Amino acid sequence: MSELDPDLVRVRGLVRDVPDHPQPGVLFRDITPVLADAEAFTTVATELASLVGAARLVAGIEARGFLLGSAAALVAGLGVVPVRKAGKLPKVAASRTYQLEYGTATLELPADTVEPGTDVFLVDDVLATGGTAAAACDLVASAGGRVIGFGVLLEIDGLGGRERLGDVPVHALLTV
Amino acid sequence: MSELDPDLVRVRGLVRDVPDHPQPGVLFRDITPVLADAEAFTTVATELASLVGAARLVAGIEARGFLLGSAAALVAGLGVVPVRKAGKLPKVAASRTYQLEYGTATLELPADTVEPGTDVFLVDDVLATGGTAAAACDLVASAGGRVIGFGVLLEIDGLGGRERLGDVPVHALLTV
Repeated sequence: MSELDPDLVRVRGLVRDVPDHPQPGVLFRDITPVLADAEAFTTVATELASLVGAARLVAGIEARGFLLGSAAALVAGLGVVPVRKAGKLPKVAASRTYQLEYGTATLELPADTVEPGTDVFLVDDVLATGGTAAAACDLVASAGGRVIGFGVLLEIDGLGGRERLGDVPVHALLTV
Repeated sequence: MSELDPDLVRVRGLVRDVPDHPQPGVLFRDITPVLADAEAFTTVATELASLVGAARLVAGIEARGFLLGSAAALVAGLGVVPVRKAGKLPKVAASRTYQLEYGTATLELPADTVEPGTDVFLVDDVLATGGTAAAACDLVASAGGRVIGFGVLLEIDGLGGRERLGDVPVHALLTV
């Protein structure tokens, strides 16, 4: 492991491991204590914002990706688009159903947010198998946009998430 | 109506009215275009952050309240606590079931975030009947915290939401 920035070491110390959530055998990485800590929260927002590159818009994946995507967008001086779970949006640009680690889910992109040709930086809390992230990339592409980077607080190594995203550069602040 | 700041007039122009969502007879106020607009998003975050007063923590109500609460917390230099829908949190401090405009819902507060004696600024996107906001205030109180202010982007007038919150000062950036 390469040496971590001391601020990120502090962030790492705040991530809480919860065994057997949401089901037996799954080790849940709870980022709630990171968000609630002003200093750690600012560190994460600033680090994610530094990764947006030439993106014109940040997309955050419901629901924890809203918290991080919003903060990163604000620091970067960009707007934020919520990639939502099914049935929440009044006007939908596109919809994708995909396989989760445990079950299936559907994500939707709001209408009239990602214009054709828009470069988008995608944000979520955790990258595991990459199913959610890949679906979100598809959604942006189907609206004519392009995900030019995917930023997460935590990447869970060994689950193939990064490979799943193909050419999209993945930036994880922490790897576990 | 008192005269609005020009930046807020611009924000108001981006709120999209969607009739009959999520059910017939309901006029849904869609703030998606506000979030996606970098300038409007910054205006809203900055205005909400200016209202936190002596709060030590911001709480955002799932899911759109995450987007605004997170941004406001970041500008204010505070941490953010997600007040979540039922079944999402690995460790719950308290839970409240309440009546919605259409149906019922349950909110949960994560464990170990609101310490006893903590002043909290609560954020959501819209204040309508106030059921959700009142439940969130109860949750914070049950953990020993105190909601010292409630900030929303939009207050829908005439639905009694403000009254429902009793002594909690309500700050709406816009009223419709």
